[in-house]
Amino acid sequence: MTPPGWRIAILNPNTTRAFTDRLGALGSALAAPGTTVIARSPASGPASIECHADEAAALPGLLRLVREEEALGTAAYVIACFGDTGLDAAREIATGPVIGMTEAALFAAAMVAPYFSVITLPPRTILQADRVLRHTGLAHRCRIRAIDVAVDDCVGMDPALLHAMLAEARRAMTEDRAEAIILGCAGLSGLVGPMTQSLGVPVIEGVTVALKMAEGLVAAGLRTSKSCTYAAPPRTEATA
Amino acid sequence: MTPPGWRIAILNPNTTRAFTDRLGALGSALAAPGTTVIARSPASGPASIECHADEAAALPGLLRLVREEEALGTAAYVIACFGDTGLDAAREIATGPVIGMTEAALFAAAMVAPYFSVITLPPRTILQADRVLRHTGLAHRCRIRAIDVAVDDCVGMDPALLHAMLAEARRAMTEDRAEAIILGCAGLSGLVGPMTQSLGVPVIEGVTVALKMAEGLVAAGLRTSKSCTYAAPPRTEATA
Amino acid sequence: MTPPGWRIAILNPNTTRAFTDRLGALGSALAAPGTTVIARSPASGPASIECHADEAAALPGLLRLVREEEALGTAAYVIACFGDTGLDAAREIATGPVIGMTEAALFAAAMVAPYFSVITLPPRTILQADRVLRHTGLAHRCRIRAIDVAVDDCVGMDPALLHAMLAEARRAMTEDRAEAIILGCAGLSGLVGPMTQSLGVPVIEGVTVALKMAEGLVAAGLRTSKSCTYAAPPRTEATA
Amino acid sequence: MTPPGWRIAILNPNTTRAFTDRLGALGSALAAPGTTVIARSPASGPASIECHADEAAALPGLLRLVREEEALGTAAYVIACFGDTGLDAAREIATGPVIGMTEAALFAAAMVAPYFSVITLPPRTILQADRVLRHTGLAHRCRIRAIDVAVDDCVGMDPALLHAMLAEARRAMTEDRAEAIILGCAGLSGLVGPMTQSLGVPVIEGVTVALKMAEGLVAAGLRTSKSCTYAAPPRTEATA
Amino acid sequence: MTPPGWRIAILNPNTTRAFTDRLGALGSALAAPGTTVIARSPASGPASIECHADEAAALPGLLRLVREEEALGTAAYVIACFGDTGLDAAREIATGPVIGMTEAALFAAAMVAPYFSVITLPPRTILQADRVLRHTGLAHRCRIRAIDVAVDDCVGMDPALLHAMLAEARRAMTEDRAEAIILGCAGLSGLVGPMTQSLGVPVIEGVTVALKMAEGLVAAGLRTSKSCTYAAPPRTEATA
Amino acid sequence: MTPPGWRIAILNPNTTRAFTDRLGALGSALAAPGTTVIARSPASGPASIECHADEAAALPGLLRLVREEEALGTAAYVIACFGDTGLDAAREIATGPVIGMTEAALFAAAMVAPYFSVITLPPRTILQADRVLRHTGLAHRCRIRAIDVAVDDCVGMDPALLHAMLAEARRAMTEDRAEAIILGCAGLSGLVGPMTQSLGVPVIEGVTVALKMAEGLVAAGLRTSKSCTYAAPPRTEATA
Repeated sequence: MTPPGWRIAILNPNTTRAFTDRLGALGSALAAPGTTVIARSPASGPASIECHADEAAALPGLLRLVREEEALGTAAYVIACFGDTGLDAAREIATGPVIGMTEAALFAAAMVAPYFSVITLPPRTILQADRVLRHTGLAHRCRIRAIDVAVDDCVGMDPALLHAMLAEARRAMTEDRAEAIILGCAGLSGLVGPMTQSLGVPVIEGVTVALKMAEGLVAAGLRTSKSCTYAAPPRTEATA
Repeated sequence: MTPPGWRIAILNPNTTRAFTDRLGALGSALAAPGTTVIARSPASGPASIECHADEAAALPGLLRLVREEEALGTAAYVIACFGDTGLDAAREIATGPVIGMTEAALFAAAMVAPYFSVITLPPRTILQADRVLRHTGLAHRCRIRAIDVAVDDCVGMDPALLHAMLAEARRAMTEDRAEAIILGCAGLSGLVGPMTQSLGVPVIEGVTVALKMAEGLVAAGLRTSKSCTYAAPPRTEATA
Repeated sequence: MTPPGWRIAILNPNTTRAFTDRLGALGSALAAPGTTVIARSPASGPASIECHADEAAALPGLLRLVREEEALGTAAYVIACFGDTGLDAAREIATGPVIGMTEAALFAAAMVAPYFSVITLPPRTILQADRVLRHTGLAHRCRIRAIDVAVDDCVGMDPALLHAMLAEARRAMTEDRAEAIILGCAGLSGLVGPMTQSLGVPVIEGVTVALKMAEGLVAAGLRTSKSCTYAAPPRTEATA
Repeated sequence: MTPPGWRIAILNPNTTRAFTDRLGALGSALAAPGTTVIARSPASGPASIECHADEAAALPGLLRLVREEEALGTAAYVIACFGDTGLDAAREIATGPVIGMTEAALFAAAMVAPYFSVITLPPRTILQADRVLRHTGLAHRCRIRAIDVAVDDCVGMDPALLHAMLAEARRAMTEDRAEAIILGCAGLSGLVGPMTQSLGVPVIEGVTVALKMAEGLVAAGLRTSKSCTYAAPPRTEATA
Repeated sequence: MTPPGWRIAILNPNTTRAFTDRLGALGSALAAPGTTVIARSPASGPASIECHADEAAALPGLLRLVREEEALGTAAYVIACFGDTGLDAAREIATGPVIGMTEAALFAAAMVAPYFSVITLPPRTILQADRVLRHTGLAHRCRIRAIDVAVDDCVGMDPALLHAMLAEARRAMTEDRAEAIILGCAGLSGLVGPMTQSLGVPVIEGVTVALKMAEGLVAAGLRTSKSCTYAAPPRTEATA
Repeated sequence: MTPPGWRIAILNPNTTRAFTDRLGALGSALAAPGTTVIARSPASGPASIECHADEAAALPGLLRLVREEEALGTAAYVIACFGDTGLDAAREIATGPVIGMTEAALFAAAMVAPYFSVITLPPRTILQADRVLRHTGLAHRCRIRAIDVAVDDCVGMDPALLHAMLAEARRAMTEDRAEAIILGCAGLSGLVGPMTQSLGVPVIEGVTVALKMAEGLVAAGLRTSKSCTYAAPPRTEATA
């Protein structure tokens, strides 16, 4: 039933090409028939989002991408950064749905497990994840944990990363009674397979589920509400 | 990318054939390429779910459907009753994801609007919807309202129903600052079009979005966590 | 002041006669002058409630008991299963108060201690207890723990059960700062004495306090509100 | 089964004899066989509790009563003031259970209705009731309302009081969807009958249900936890 | 005791000079002896913050100001925009305290009244205020309201603005039982006097109380915690 | 800008002169130019506040101090006891702001760190701190811990106290991810220096920040709202 020509954009707020390419490959592999999934990153901005200042620096470039995509008639967007950088602002500019990878991961987890944990990185970004968690309201079913690794260090996907993630996930399963694990960084998608195999519980990667939810909302005919909060910004292009 | 042969079952806990047929038509129209969507209802049980006693009476038949479907290799399920009757028990029996139309509607609303309201019926079922709302945690962004109509009376879809729903939705938009409206009954799918047109905000029908989320979770390779709460019941067939 | 002839029914949702007999003895020993307490279990259904599917299977039989008791003019009911199986549906059918052992235990604990913990079993039923806890709102003062024992294994009351419960209770007292302990299964009433003696804090058994609260509400002239949610079901007997 | 000789004290924190006498009569009428219920008020202190400063002024006298009653072997206490004045301090001094009329009313309401409202007086005491409500955790099911009448003015029980309470209760039933009403003052017990008759929903008087819960906890062998928070105060008699 | 030379910067995220000048005058009038208060706005960016996209556009300029001020040894900062734009990022860059006018207003209100309401503008910014409110946790004591006026329209301070604010404040006092009113925009400081006089309850202006709290934290020797979340950003200057 | 003659009273609810003197010295050292800070304690009452009964015993004397200070035109008050004894009653009597050291410490912590912990003493007072924490709403960002020391034992400030506080603070930093530490007793102000030095995170002393916030609210022209809850008590002097 999916009509031809839906374009869905995965927006990587950082400028590391390797991440964006990986997201593009992931998106193409997951795209439903009739959906074109592309991944983009801003022309300039921070190489990774390690803190709030990085988020702020990434925002103008990220929103410029949304404006460009709107001109192309893009049907929906995925924000591919844990913490859902710029989600509200992007919803003001976009017509179709904009899905944050964090909220999507939380909602997906809530549909396959009663209790679950996020493992994010680095520890200083727990607040960003926590704000999304509070906004979704799932804090009574989810605990956020972190390993002491920088986002930058996820590019290479070395074995120590898998090892640290597995150790923390096992602590979550014992101490938090987590029955599913959310990967708290867009750079961790390569760990879904090995972690699922080792842990025996659902391991949830946010970009993946955000993309499928974006397709689903589009197919259901839903778009961002424009009645108040997410109405188009009064200024056509904000001056940065 | 969707492989052929995924079967998704929409489970209507009541025995009113007209409802089930309507759900089947809805499901077929919405099914992604490669997905077969069927709608089923129990052989016996209440004609509609108007209260908790009806839910209890519907449960054995509903779970029997899940057991039958599991034998067919069904990939995912949608519980098509506002209040998500039997969701936890179905998850114990099923291997794939089981999505409640209430939770799916709440999650979808949360991705297109900051604040939203449910309009359910009859008023005595508000508690059922409220329990799902509390479990999702979105109570700080959602208010539940009701119109004084029985579920049974939704079969005919007479104009008074649309009128009452529109009036209550407008109250929600003014008094609750709702920016999206959730239809609180599986029998109301016919109202999505006219209500969207009249109100100018997203009108969310739970079976529709639950079905798309079910497809999405399956495509993402996710299944119900079996590590503890939703492990297969110790008894193969409970004696009713 | 208690008038003669009040009949209060303890409803055991499972069909294990040994449990029901124990509940009957407990009830008779506790009954206030002028109160007749009887314990009943359904004619058919699961032998114990170990999961949500068991709850679903037990419900029709449980509600049939309520209908039979109503014909006898029963004044109040106690649901003797941790998780308060079928509480809302029973309230629709009953005229007098229906008290869940879980809610009663939580309320009693809240009146003798600022913080307390539940120790339930098996771990997969934590969700059931958690839903009651959330509905009572006492989650900020109570933590739910579990030991890895099946309900079925409580019939015999072997020493290992007491040992495991004591060990978990001591962890609750240290880690949760619990100042009272709630026994999270109707089959554990025999542990109140030894656990109270060992721990030195109130050990609360839900059926006991639910029965006394049921008597109290009846004496206070209170009955289940019939104005909306708990009004009599529209159908006299649901078809199962 | 109730052994002879249990003495339960209803403690009226104010010094208005007419209130105390009414509470004594209420208690005697409600007392279970084998329970002696007496009502007492402090020798000196405010004539009514209209604000926090009145609470503070009433506390030393109230606690002196608890010390005197402990010497008599009193089994349990009811604090007969909406807002549960001095509850925590009394629990430190007492050995048996101490029940606040506010918490008892909230718990009783929660067992007969899903949603309910408090109608207290005067409006400035809403904060006192709200603090108890937050501590019980039932705020998601209960709203607090007030009529503009002083506690002092409840002694006479004139018809205008009933009229004002009924009007506010009807607003609660419509606007809050309240299915039970809690009377928010110990001086309102005379309204239970006429309000129940007019409204058709349970009308809950806190002293009544607190007394029955006190009897119930005593019969169940429960006492105030002395392991930490409510341990006996280090000083035998505080110097006021 | 205040040492000479403390510099506190009020940061106006928008570029409207009239606003910044007014904030500078306000700050100078309020500054404690020994405190120099200056107000600054970015060199470029949106003329007012009417939505999330405006916030995003304002952020790079705002953070540049913090970096410049840090070089001058500035002791503390006030973010003068309701919604506390860029607060977390600014805290990463700053050494001293950074206070948002929204959080400060909420905390001040909580110390002079049990319940209070925010009146912000325009309605689409309610979400921004709500996120701060949720983070402070005061949602159980505060309701957010809005009048339908753009921030831009506050420059002139015409009488209609005062009239609309007073009308909404009176609704808050009646419907929310608000006992204090928070002005939800940095452009409304001129209304404190007339509104206080008309309403007879505390009217709280966020920049004012944020400035006094900033002075207070500095005098108390407190600075932003640098142990994890607010540690200096790994990149010295993010590339925008 | 601070006008001459503002008098701010630090009220120590206990009668230990050494504590009061220390608070007076602290207040004088911290006072802004133009502010006179004095510390007072009741003529009679408990020597320290170790439990709720001590609070009750301290209240009449505490409120008498407020009445005396009001006659002197005192501009604001600080309640110098963790748990904020008598805060609401004092607000009824006072005209200017009354600040509790607990609420002030929580608000200050919330402005310099995302997550923080309280370390109070003795453990039985956790409930008192918890009630303030719940009323401020910051429980999602703060955990309360306790060391097993009596308030009385803080007079001497022996090294074991510092050692115990440091050990518990380190556990808070690891287990709770606390990024700031609140000292949970007015007798601990001497530990701010050594603990800050050892821990490297903000260590917050409540009397200090309450005093600065009191000065700030006074300078901002704010006083306690008198519109309802905190209106002057109907009785001029309550009879104790």
